[in-house]
Amino acid sequence: MERIESAENKKIKLAQSLTRRKKREAEGLFLAEGLRLAEMAAASDWEISYGLVTPALRERGRGARLVERLASRTKLYEVEERLLKKASATETPQGILLVLEERHWALSELPAAENPFYVLLDGLQEPGNVGTILRTADAAGADAVLLTRGSADPFGDKAVRSAMGSLFHLPICPSLTAEEVLAFARERGLRLLVTALDATAKMHFDTDFRGPSLVVFGNEGNGVSAELLQAAEKVYIPMAEREAGQAESLNVAASAAILLYEALRQRHYSNRQI
Amino acid sequence: MERIESAENKKIKLAQSLTRRKKREAEGLFLAEGLRLAEMAAASDWEISYGLVTPALRERGRGARLVERLASRTKLYEVEERLLKKASATETPQGILLVLEERHWALSELPAAENPFYVLLDGLQEPGNVGTILRTADAAGADAVLLTRGSADPFGDKAVRSAMGSLFHLPICPSLTAEEVLAFARERGLRLLVTALDATAKMHFDTDFRGPSLVVFGNEGNGVSAELLQAAEKVYIPMAEREAGQAESLNVAASAAILLYEALRQRHYSNRQI
Repeated sequence: MERIESAENKKIKLAQSLTRRKKREAEGLFLAEGLRLAEMAAASDWEISYGLVTPALRERGRGARLVERLASRTKLYEVEERLLKKASATETPQGILLVLEERHWALSELPAAENPFYVLLDGLQEPGNVGTILRTADAAGADAVLLTRGSADPFGDKAVRSAMGSLFHLPICPSLTAEEVLAFARERGLRLLVTALDATAKMHFDTDFRGPSLVVFGNEGNGVSAELLQAAEKVYIPMAEREAGQAESLNVAASAAILLYEALRQRHYSNRQI
Repeated sequence: MERIESAENKKIKLAQSLTRRKKREAEGLFLAEGLRLAEMAAASDWEISYGLVTPALRERGRGARLVERLASRTKLYEVEERLLKKASATETPQGILLVLEERHWALSELPAAENPFYVLLDGLQEPGNVGTILRTADAAGADAVLLTRGSADPFGDKAVRSAMGSLFHLPICPSLTAEEVLAFARERGLRLLVTALDATAKMHFDTDFRGPSLVVFGNEGNGVSAELLQAAEKVYIPMAEREAGQAESLNVAASAAILLYEALRQRHYSNRQI
């Protein structure tokens, strides 16, 4: 394995630069750090540009097996812990950092599904929320996750870590405009549903998610953009009333979990006794 | 309003020290920072020890109204932005910081509810998860949130911010042992349910949450402790299978949202058509 000694090395510099969104977009590359995430990348068919590993990682059984697996499909470089930290977005990269090619799906590339269920993140700001919703959408069996232009980057370090391996399972369509989304929903015959607190909104337990659907989650502070809000049916999640007044609103990733699993229930588990 | 000029002032020093868990526990005090959280504290009946506000905050309408409201029930001190930042756990305390008295409920103090529903966090490490689950439990109408000793502090800065005002609505019982929890469940006739992936686990859609229940969520990496796991019925949340294999596990706060809302559905919305 080739060894990199200098912080000025191009591979180190490139990895370092990928902590910035602009650079990720320009290069079409992103970082996956840590043993677990690297294992998931290795188990996927995603293109791995190269990897940086510490000598210590190769000594442990799990690390050694991972290195062996990766070596057959990408170029690995040995670096000291100190150098790996320089290249990394986290404080503790755990001995391995991979540089991967981003995969962006165009809406037109999404395969026709029998009864599709899509999730759209409209202007979500928190990378942790974006990653967590990717993970939940994966578990709930969504067909793809779409993002409008103003949303946090799903390939940013924090989103990637929150998504765990789910990033590698689900088609992701980033940087969309509201017009593109609306045209897609029309073409594919999708019911457009947005989460909103509004007099015309229907409770999610009363909303029919069984057909082809596109469910929209909005910005943490401002909700869904006016253009989508206007074109869609509104759904709300009921909240308990207390002596102290109405409970606070839900975190958007919690809302998504509740709604996506109610959809899953209606689609696949609605014949239960309870 | 009295003005504090020095970083050596006792009120500043005390606030600063409350960013540490040990100090919070010793003093029984915690911090609520920012306009929104301070408004929620003001709307609650929680004991506010004192507050620090910047001159700029008092000039804006919303800030001025809050200051007026708070002035009638606690001592407020004017400090410059620079000093407020020193006392604060965040980079941007937004002009106001309150020092509040923690409220710990003993299990024996929890009022007898008709058909109670309790949430237990068993060794949860991430303060953001603890806060988000508090918020979700509040919205889903839980009667209290219990925490075992090894869990993150619900009164820590990040948990408080993630919980939003929900902290002020819900009884919180921290620092419990597994024995105390088991005795409580026995005394109150609660069904003990833990989330776990295990051959004897039942899908959450098939689990009956309609009676008196205590639902346990475990540590992010290791799950629920052996003692509770052994004594409880196991529940799992189904996940989609994909070409790439099984979807990744859910984030614990997402699991909690899914499960608590399935319980809410069974308890209050089970007569729906869908």
